[in-house]
Amino acid sequence: MTTQPQHPLDRVQASPHGLRTAQALMEQQRVLCETLTGLDGQVFGSDSWRKPEGGGGVSRVLEEGRVFEKGGVLFSAINGSGLPPVVLKEHPDLPPTTPFFATGVSLILHPVNPFVPTVHFNVRYFEVGPVYWYGGGMDLTPYYPFQEDCVHFHRTIKASCDRFDTGYYPRFKPWCDSYFYLKHRQEPRGIGGIFFNYLKDGQEPGLNFILELCATFLRAYAPLVERRRELPFTQAQRDFQAYRRGRYVEFNLIYDQGTLFGLQAGGRVESILASLPPQVRWRYDYQPAPESPEAALTRDFLPPRDWVAL
Amino acid sequence: MTTQPQHPLDRVQASPHGLRTAQALMEQQRVLCETLTGLDGQVFGSDSWRKPEGGGGVSRVLEEGRVFEKGGVLFSAINGSGLPPVVLKEHPDLPPTTPFFATGVSLILHPVNPFVPTVHFNVRYFEVGPVYWYGGGMDLTPYYPFQEDCVHFHRTIKASCDRFDTGYYPRFKPWCDSYFYLKHRQEPRGIGGIFFNYLKDGQEPGLNFILELCATFLRAYAPLVERRRELPFTQAQRDFQAYRRGRYVEFNLIYDQGTLFGLQAGGRVESILASLPPQVRWRYDYQPAPESPEAALTRDFLPPRDWVAL
Repeated sequence: MTTQPQHPLDRVQASPHGLRTAQALMEQQRVLCETLTGLDGQVFGSDSWRKPEGGGGVSRVLEEGRVFEKGGVLFSAINGSGLPPVVLKEHPDLPPTTPFFATGVSLILHPVNPFVPTVHFNVRYFEVGPVYWYGGGMDLTPYYPFQEDCVHFHRTIKASCDRFDTGYYPRFKPWCDSYFYLKHRQEPRGIGGIFFNYLKDGQEPGLNFILELCATFLRAYAPLVERRRELPFTQAQRDFQAYRRGRYVEFNLIYDQGTLFGLQAGGRVESILASLPPQVRWRYDYQPAPESPEAALTRDFLPPRDWVAL
Repeated sequence: MTTQPQHPLDRVQASPHGLRTAQALMEQQRVLCETLTGLDGQVFGSDSWRKPEGGGGVSRVLEEGRVFEKGGVLFSAINGSGLPPVVLKEHPDLPPTTPFFATGVSLILHPVNPFVPTVHFNVRYFEVGPVYWYGGGMDLTPYYPFQEDCVHFHRTIKASCDRFDTGYYPRFKPWCDSYFYLKHRQEPRGIGGIFFNYLKDGQEPGLNFILELCATFLRAYAPLVERRRELPFTQAQRDFQAYRRGRYVEFNLIYDQGTLFGLQAGGRVESILASLPPQVRWRYDYQPAPESPEAALTRDFLPPRDWVAL
């Protein structure tokens, strides 16, 4: 029996590039938490967990902060055997029992102030035999949006994408719009951002791209927090925020592939569901008044728009 | 153009027995709402809706009542073509495009007081060509349970079942335990009750059984409301109730066949999701203190028990 604490990457099976990616993402988790703590004041808690098949993760969660009512920055690096159905659909050539390695960082922030948008960010690397790919993205879910915030968020992302490939943003922006969509309500989850998967433009360029996205996320989102976190708000605005958070729950539990795969595959429930908002309301058949800011959200902001052109 | 309000059963296609069942269930919806209003004081709102393929429904919802924070009593009688996947699995003999008729009443109550349990009740009738069946059930989801309430709920149901078939309760009680189960948390939703489907023990006996269950539901649940609704409670107990309601959301959005089929089939979203609790909290990795009443819920009440024998 050893009394030394185990490192989350002990005993994980991956290529040298896979291990280096996992180490780099763990470091990004630290940077993200540190920067967010700078905005909030509160330090993120930390839970390490392991998977019997190999690997594990570190879940860092903050609750009831001054700025963030709930925030999670989750790192994992795991081995598995038995490819997820979504992977098999994309790669019917791979035997279903092929062992794989996956590592990633997921982040979600539910701010207190309804003028600060909820945000989601994720980057991940997957390898199975000689095949590998990158995936990820980030998207913004405002309650009382400001056009300049939406424009800043999208422009910042586009600028980073363009430095790698000017084709990325034009492909990844509509991909995000179609992925984060609540079919049953015929409503986008938020004002989008980017989403991509199965990106195979080289291992080294891919790693550089997802590391750049970690920094991009902070440049895209932190200014929105700084601009809006001190704005006064009413209880009615908090109630609307709680009501809209219901849409977030509906999306994550009904549609989100990561959530559903994680739950089906027996992942760590508390880490997977750390994305759920802290306080939520469902009201029957709620309709905002026609000319209200609440109506403006669904009418003017949620339908996909070319934000960088505004 | 007619100015007369349309009856929900106008233009629905069903056998004479199917129509009579729908009429009887509409009447049960009225009785249920009236009795619950007697407990709460508040009257249920009423929304009628129609389905282009035929039929429709009446959704009756109460919000912010004195006793019920949210309650829905939903009636529907609809035609459809294209059998639900769950039905095809049970009846591979039926052509997938067979037109069907389905009618039912669903009820869900989320009380204010954390000592009053949440309850769900449903009865339904399905016919497709010469084939028909009944389904339904009721189950209790307490927050701070009293053993005598659980025993009363189960004994009342068993007594009604026994008058029809002494084999019903022994079959339908474990069916309920296995259906209302959150696999990802390895946790039952509540303390159960009964659940059944594809019941084909005669059209007339089946109708009598589900009508009896409507009355049984009130006898099983109303005394719990009367006993507990005036008990004083703390904000911490309300918070625990809101936390546990998160499990209800997880079950309904991830597992519940009725919810998922309704959303996939393009049903009326606000009616389908009227089952969701009004206020919900998710806390990261919450663990109640070992000897607390909160810990007693999951330790002593949720694991399936033979309540009628206590």
